[in-house]
Amino acid sequence: MKDTLQKIPYIYADNAATTRVSPTAVAAMLPYFDTLYGNPSSLHTCGQEAAVALLQARETVASLLHADPKEITFTSGGSEADNQALLTGALLGARKGKKHIISTKFEHHAVLHTLDKLKKEGFSVTLLDVHENGIVRPEDVAAALQEDTCLVSIMFANNEIGTLQPIREIGALCRERGVLFHTDAVQAVGHVPVDVVEMNIDMLSLSAHKFHGPKGVGALYARRGIRPSILIEGGAQERGRRAGTENIPGIMGMAVAMQEAVDHMEENAARITAQRDRIIEGLSKIPYACLNGDREHRVPGTINFCFEGVEGESLLLLLDMRGIAASSGSACTSGSLDPSHVLLALGLPHEVAHGSLRLSLGDDITAQQADHIVQSVTEVIAYLRNMSPVWDELEKGEIAHWLTKEGGRNHAVQ
Amino acid sequence: MKDTLQKIPYIYADNAATTRVSPTAVAAMLPYFDTLYGNPSSLHTCGQEAAVALLQARETVASLLHADPKEITFTSGGSEADNQALLTGALLGARKGKKHIISTKFEHHAVLHTLDKLKKEGFSVTLLDVHENGIVRPEDVAAALQEDTCLVSIMFANNEIGTLQPIREIGALCRERGVLFHTDAVQAVGHVPVDVVEMNIDMLSLSAHKFHGPKGVGALYARRGIRPSILIEGGAQERGRRAGTENIPGIMGMAVAMQEAVDHMEENAARITAQRDRIIEGLSKIPYACLNGDREHRVPGTINFCFEGVEGESLLLLLDMRGIAASSGSACTSGSLDPSHVLLALGLPHEVAHGSLRLSLGDDITAQQADHIVQSVTEVIAYLRNMSPVWDELEKGEIAHWLTKEGGRNHAVQ
Repeated sequence: MKDTLQKIPYIYADNAATTRVSPTAVAAMLPYFDTLYGNPSSLHTCGQEAAVALLQARETVASLLHADPKEITFTSGGSEADNQALLTGALLGARKGKKHIISTKFEHHAVLHTLDKLKKEGFSVTLLDVHENGIVRPEDVAAALQEDTCLVSIMFANNEIGTLQPIREIGALCRERGVLFHTDAVQAVGHVPVDVVEMNIDMLSLSAHKFHGPKGVGALYARRGIRPSILIEGGAQERGRRAGTENIPGIMGMAVAMQEAVDHMEENAARITAQRDRIIEGLSKIPYACLNGDREHRVPGTINFCFEGVEGESLLLLLDMRGIAASSGSACTSGSLDPSHVLLALGLPHEVAHGSLRLSLGDDITAQQADHIVQSVTEVIAYLRNMSPVWDELEKGEIAHWLTKEGGRNHAVQ
Repeated sequence: MKDTLQKIPYIYADNAATTRVSPTAVAAMLPYFDTLYGNPSSLHTCGQEAAVALLQARETVASLLHADPKEITFTSGGSEADNQALLTGALLGARKGKKHIISTKFEHHAVLHTLDKLKKEGFSVTLLDVHENGIVRPEDVAAALQEDTCLVSIMFANNEIGTLQPIREIGALCRERGVLFHTDAVQAVGHVPVDVVEMNIDMLSLSAHKFHGPKGVGALYARRGIRPSILIEGGAQERGRRAGTENIPGIMGMAVAMQEAVDHMEENAARITAQRDRIIEGLSKIPYACLNGDREHRVPGTINFCFEGVEGESLLLLLDMRGIAASSGSACTSGSLDPSHVLLALGLPHEVAHGSLRLSLGDDITAQQADHIVQSVTEVIAYLRNMSPVWDELEKGEIAHWLTKEGGRNHAVQ
């Protein structure tokens, strides 16, 4: 791939799947591989140097969330943190005889599949609608709260469409009702301001590789007084909350990348948002195409469109040939023939959901690249539609358009 | 610590706690941080390059265990792999109404604490004795097998004393009786030959940072036909067996380090064993000191001694000041005031178990370093005993020696 990268101006627009590790983060990791390689549980100098590094990283991660270091448990990533958070809420609830959990239809599978597991263990789960705009309504949360609700888990920003949720309001609601509130903030941390105190968050999951940190490391924030249940049993690392020798290089890389992302958040957000809007504007000119998720309430870099009469996978492959790395939705479910559960939750039918494209922009996106993306997508869509029997039928009126030409929902057929 | 390292000839003798990542492994990891940083689940070139790397790493790890790539699940380390293996054996057993598990008294806490959790879920557990020499007897396993035994989990090499277990024989026994056999091979892989087929192993856990790979990555081998239960729910990574974006740099580092360790195993083992024996011989001259665990059946690098009238933590700190990084036992339980459960399992009393020293040698150990270790330990023991009120009482005969002067067990007091 190195060759390819040198030959064509490759535009990596899949930052919601994973990001390039920042040079600063790589540099921060390196000494911990072969110089300061001690086990932080060891009493000797080499181990204690690692323990000091671990402490510093914990302080950094905590302070960037407005949390206390003791409230941070390092994990192997966002999925593990999500699993542990839900298990924690469920077990604390079960002890009080409360076994009802509220979440949403468009959570990440790390949440949804854990909820499925909890259902088998006797918990009941309410999955809230996310409406056409991909945003949960606090009043829906309020209406769903029951006497036996022990946990509300609602993602901070959706991974496929990028919509931001009213976390502060939902958190306040839960706090008022004495119900634990967890948010999967994997797509938010490092991209938009996150303040666990001000936003009334009890538990929060994050993943380093979504903000230019390394893969294989993440964290669970659990507010003081909430002792995380153990998912991985063993040694007494992480104050007995997560066994296994700490991934010191990864944790150092995460802390540095998170600091860097937060330090540059405002300028990055401004730059990315400008190009995001340029792309949204450009792609909106394609007929029978719609932007998925609210136009305004979204993370800076994520754009998700559906194009009628197009198959998402072909679209990706042709864009890749033109030097654009994009996605049809979550990387975690690629290869699956099922349409995205997120797009279905927005009310899109299978055939439209199949024609989806997610572009998640990086910090270094330029106007020239944005224009190249718009032009390429426009051309590839025209090419694919030209070959598509479904598009042919749509054009001939043999089947009805689900979208209007301008991208609205064609309420005549719905 | 860099300064310290430059000033004195630091001898890192805590390789059972963690190892320095090999330069080859670091080099193998680097491109995956900032060049080939794609998510292997992404369909574009950048993602598919990562997918190819993942496949190659899986083939390497599998072949070095004599396994098939499909039998390898990458995890965040040895503890996670142990947890997942035990959960798998337990759930498969429970489906057949079999809820008895056999393990040993000196397993790693990743196994013992998971067994405690399973006990709360209705499983019964038999923990076998490991006798004076720290070796499980196959006949004890045979005697413990019940009609409802679903799983036997016995570590390949003990992490504190280094003794190797008769894995092949125990595996054959279990295979004959149709009982799943798991081995925690965290201290064995990369150090002694491991062949899952020839040794009748159904499940095996390994951890990269114990053989000069990076921290935060490991693997679970599960024989074809044994589908690992999911510990971390979410995306469909690892063929649906372990969710979360794969830690590609870590996995690449692990594969390269494992290949390197196996390629050089024979020469490393010969070099390390020679120095290990030189140290054992030297330390055996200290009066009232005993080598813990069988003299012969042990991994090349691990030595564990107990010294009467000495407190292990003081010993470590004084050795550290002399430039020797050692341990009193498992790093995972350091800081705990309890004596090692491993040493207690050998039948040592608390007061003797407290005076333990683990030296786990690296590949680059020299005779000069071995002599320096022996001299330093000898001097530090003399210094500590000179200050010790307990030693004073032992010397005056006010309390009886538990060991003979030559290091045997004083059966008169036992």
